Amino acid sequence: MKIVLLGSGNVATHLAKALKSKGEDLVQVYSQNLDNAVSLAQLIGARAIDDLTDVEQHAALYIISVKDDAIGTVAASLKNVSGLVVHTSGTTDINVLASQVKKAGVFYPLQTFSKSKDVSFDNIPLCIEANESDQLTVLNGLATKLSNQVYELDGEKRKVLHLAAVFACNFPNHLYALANKILNQNGLDFEIIRPLIAETADKVMGNLPENVQTGPAVRGDESTLNKHLSMLNDMPELHNIYQILSNSIKLMQK
Amino acid sequence: MKIVLLGSGNVATHLAKALKSKGEDLVQVYSQNLDNAVSLAQLIGARAIDDLTDVEQHAALYIISVKDDAIGTVAASLKNVSGLVVHTSGTTDINVLASQVKKAGVFYPLQTFSKSKDVSFDNIPLCIEANESDQLTVLNGLATKLSNQVYELDGEKRKVLHLAAVFACNFPNHLYALANKILNQNGLDFEIIRPLIAETADKVMGNLPENVQTGPAVRGDESTLNKHLSMLNDMPELHNIYQILSNSIKLMQK
Repeated sequence: MKIVLLGSGNVATHLAKALKSKGEDLVQVYSQNLDNAVSLAQLIGARAIDDLTDVEQHAALYIISVKDDAIGTVAASLKNVSGLVVHTSGTTDINVLASQVKKAGVFYPLQTFSKSKDVSFDNIPLCIEANESDQLTVLNGLATKLSNQVYELDGEKRKVLHLAAVFACNFPNHLYALANKILNQNGLDFEIIRPLIAETADKVMGNLPENVQTGPAVRGDESTLNKHLSMLNDMPELHNIYQILSNSIKLMQK
Repeated sequence: MKIVLLGSGNVATHLAKALKSKGEDLVQVYSQNLDNAVSLAQLIGARAIDDLTDVEQHAALYIISVKDDAIGTVAASLKNVSGLVVHTSGTTDINVLASQVKKAGVFYPLQTFSKSKDVSFDNIPLCIEANESDQLTVLNGLATKLSNQVYELDGEKRKVLHLAAVFACNFPNHLYALANKILNQNGLDFEIIRPLIAETADKVMGNLPENVQTGPAVRGDESTLNKHLSMLNDMPELHNIYQILSNSIKLMQK
């Protein structure tokens, strides 16, 4: 399948590599920043462009993987293509595309991507949607080549999933960062806490999190909760977070 | 080494199994609840007791692994033993023991334990402390048999570590539970989000969390933040948590 990739960020990069590894034909990479377009294009043997008027008009698939608020602008330049145009966003409605192009879809990989770390697409849930059933079949074919977990989800469910992902990924990572802040202020290294983080995530691979909650809040151990809060007296932001999350843990047990 | 174990909860159980597997001689298991004492004692070939006056007086090591507020009471029954008495608590001062027994110590495994899941002690950080240097040597010997990561930490640092562990383990697990609540209310299964949780934890095994933060807050994507907040309008508790953690993420970038 002849594919044009519009975007060169983390999602675009990881997706491009995965598609290339499955033998897909990525013909162009567009980025506002030509250097970024060139770096990614070289990696996958595509042509780099930084002008939307240079986009190849006869590809089968256009993947828009740019910041959410730029999706509409990029889509506007694809008004005349006959191929399927998809975005990779968790929160953006399919209509942002469907209002501008004939064949619109969504190809949302539910994963956290960073430049520094390769991920295998095999187990990444791919959430797909399309405005025509034929196009859904096309997307499903491509998605199942990449991943064992393909979900056909409408826009409402996809948005819920994206919201849940903030709770399951972005917020936990920030709490790791706050833990590191506490450790650093006391001359302790993040290294010491890594096994705990790994086990905490591993524990919910076979259990539901509400069934394996541990710690002072779920035990109703007020003495430890109070000690911890007093240790955070000079860090009001962390004090507040500690209190609110502990209360939320207690609330869930009721 | 002849060991008496006082306690039969998650920490006691996992520690007992690990000690047994290294050939240590666990002679007694005490629990207020005889059934619990018997279950664990049978597992490791020890004798079960539910009366503190029946505790064997000539063991080399007494491990108190009970709720924090019960440690003092259990220690009071060990006033006449000549062996080393340790607790396994992250927050309890060594003096709770040292005020009552001759040889006092701490043997704190920094990990989250649940009945349903076995863990290998090899990579569990063991934090040790003792009121005599000879006893520290004894504890170090035992700890290095069990784990590759042994830390000699004073009480202040251990308490800091325990506090950081709440941020790195208990709170992330609760956020997984909130994610599941959001998913369930919309007919989605927790299964879909497990690969994301696994990758989020895996990413900080080789990086510092503040360097790999992703999501709308760190991108300053106010449009998505507002959409998410409006989706949480009928869940004020989650709305509050979303706002506070998003603000905290933004604050850390400054």
